[in-house]
Amino acid sequence: MQSFNPPIRTLMGPGPSDIHPRVLAAMARPTIGHLDPAFVGMMDEIKELLKYAFQTENALTMPVSAPGSAGMETCFVNLVEPGDKVIVCINGVFGGRMKENIERFGGEAIVVEDEWGTAVTPSKVEDACKAHPDAKIVAFVHAETSTGALSDAKTICKIAQDHDCLTIVDAVTSLGGVELKVDEWGIDAIYSGTQKCLSCVPGLSPVSFSEKALDKVRNRATRVPSWFMDLNLVMGYWGQGAKRAYHHTAPVNTLYALHESLVMLKEEGLEASHARHAKVHQQLKAGLEPMGISFVVPEDQRLPQLNSIVIPEGFDDAEVRGRLLNEYNLEIGAGLGALAGKVWRIGLMGDSARPEKVLFCLAALKEVLGK
Amino acid sequence: MQSFNPPIRTLMGPGPSDIHPRVLAAMARPTIGHLDPAFVGMMDEIKELLKYAFQTENALTMPVSAPGSAGMETCFVNLVEPGDKVIVCINGVFGGRMKENIERFGGEAIVVEDEWGTAVTPSKVEDACKAHPDAKIVAFVHAETSTGALSDAKTICKIAQDHDCLTIVDAVTSLGGVELKVDEWGIDAIYSGTQKCLSCVPGLSPVSFSEKALDKVRNRATRVPSWFMDLNLVMGYWGQGAKRAYHHTAPVNTLYALHESLVMLKEEGLEASHARHAKVHQQLKAGLEPMGISFVVPEDQRLPQLNSIVIPEGFDDAEVRGRLLNEYNLEIGAGLGALAGKVWRIGLMGDSARPEKVLFCLAALKEVLGK
Repeated sequence: MQSFNPPIRTLMGPGPSDIHPRVLAAMARPTIGHLDPAFVGMMDEIKELLKYAFQTENALTMPVSAPGSAGMETCFVNLVEPGDKVIVCINGVFGGRMKENIERFGGEAIVVEDEWGTAVTPSKVEDACKAHPDAKIVAFVHAETSTGALSDAKTICKIAQDHDCLTIVDAVTSLGGVELKVDEWGIDAIYSGTQKCLSCVPGLSPVSFSEKALDKVRNRATRVPSWFMDLNLVMGYWGQGAKRAYHHTAPVNTLYALHESLVMLKEEGLEASHARHAKVHQQLKAGLEPMGISFVVPEDQRLPQLNSIVIPEGFDDAEVRGRLLNEYNLEIGAGLGALAGKVWRIGLMGDSARPEKVLFCLAALKEVLGK
Repeated sequence: MQSFNPPIRTLMGPGPSDIHPRVLAAMARPTIGHLDPAFVGMMDEIKELLKYAFQTENALTMPVSAPGSAGMETCFVNLVEPGDKVIVCINGVFGGRMKENIERFGGEAIVVEDEWGTAVTPSKVEDACKAHPDAKIVAFVHAETSTGALSDAKTICKIAQDHDCLTIVDAVTSLGGVELKVDEWGIDAIYSGTQKCLSCVPGLSPVSFSEKALDKVRNRATRVPSWFMDLNLVMGYWGQGAKRAYHHTAPVNTLYALHESLVMLKEEGLEASHARHAKVHQQLKAGLEPMGISFVVPEDQRLPQLNSIVIPEGFDDAEVRGRLLNEYNLEIGAGLGALAGKVWRIGLMGDSARPEKVLFCLAALKEVLGK
């Protein structure tokens, strides 16, 4: 068995996105102890940088030491108690996964459904809130990675607040790519991933919790059915204060990488990053239209950084993706769940959201499809 | 906010241990998709290499995409159902954490206690099995990282089997450093960490499950109260078979690092690695004795790679560790739990288990203590 030397790909699927050499270099720096004062100082910087990315002053803003799915679970396992009614919006795979989480922790899921490939309809959320005045939480996906639909988080959060509900928001694919204002919109619990618009390696899940959310966690009637994800414990490790209580061993080098990618986001600026993602989306659109390739999501609900496109008739899903991978070292994504075999997903996220890469992707698609 | 450039330390605490440049270099290789055939091939190699490290043929042998604490939780959340009686041996911090896990998942913990700094007493486990014939699981820590005591896993597993109990074993600090034979000893569920004797970066938790353990998971009366850790789902992602079901996004680059560290373990050979750890332990012992520094754990129960030593009278714990860190860039570990302030923990694990590093550590200690 020998060392693994990966092929050099261009990653334009639903994540991971391409990683900038600065981030890869940061990750390879020598490991130090996870309680080393130098490391603790870096953790504090990560928290500050994440507050900027999330546009929040929430004290508990930090990366969970595991992938986005664990960030999702951290939100639900802490906030949902047995018997709690939770309104959950499903318009793709990840809304469905939220429902699974709610039920596993003994909650009752009130489902608000929208068609896959469309945004969550705020009026449906409002109807559900009215029909279930005892609901405690509204949960929804800001940017559905399975379809590329962007929902109106600001409006949905307002509705939830008007009905005294906490909000749990999936921002895995939106963070860094489109406008996201945790404090201004009044989001109570949010989770994201590092391998999308932050262009960091996969393996961490940035989260943020409002004081209102933490109050619910502190005053639970039952213990959190997880030791690893119990915020009451995690707060002692990532929380403010001089003395940090040992909880688990942080993934030191992956946190170096996240730090570097967040420094890069700060250097570029959030608005500039959003504008860059919007611009390459227009470039992609302008290139796909002459090929007769259409988008799944209506234009006004479309996420710039994750583009579900309809597989043109006469072409085989796996064969085309295989040719792109093998002949061009280009990865694009397959459809997920109900859209499997029907769509491709082109990700323009983080360091993959570059005009030169969009140009290459369009040219490769054109050759393979003979358009 | 600028890029983070960590100080260059020598890591001789309880982990992370020093990372070999080959492992750091592997981690910095370009990221590829987590469903890329090249990546899936590497995952298969990791499984094979882990089987070698654990000395097992268990099909479900893989790294959990999160630190050791999540590996622990993966074992307990899947195997303990509400009402299950679990015999748990506590002789340090991590046995206590096992008990926490059992109780959070609704199990009833039957505690077998041994003094901190000593091994688990097998006859006490036998007595507990006899007193609780309805117990379903025996859980214990092979190598207690908080004290450095090594327990007789072979004998304890035999007792558990004789009483029809499954076994859950914490091998966080033992894997790669001392003899560990999952199949021969009949261990049913085992978890480890990557940042100890494997000398890989922290963030992953290698686990292995016997068919008997998986049968219990498959036939649970209740759903696993975790989506991220549910083995019924994880098996579809890491399991055998042509088609891999998407579960979460694997921490691609950290897995590159684990692959490299396991290739290095295979190159060295398990027995040679064990012998190296044993040899540097003797070197440390021979150097500490003239300084009048004694060990916490009796010699016949002592783990070579994690050495708890008594802080000599007249010296301040934090001050000495601070001087070693600031003046020598040397990290040694503090005591944990009941041993905090009373002991130091010197780790000789993985790439830190080198004679030149032990020599340096002894020389630095000698200077700081004025011995």
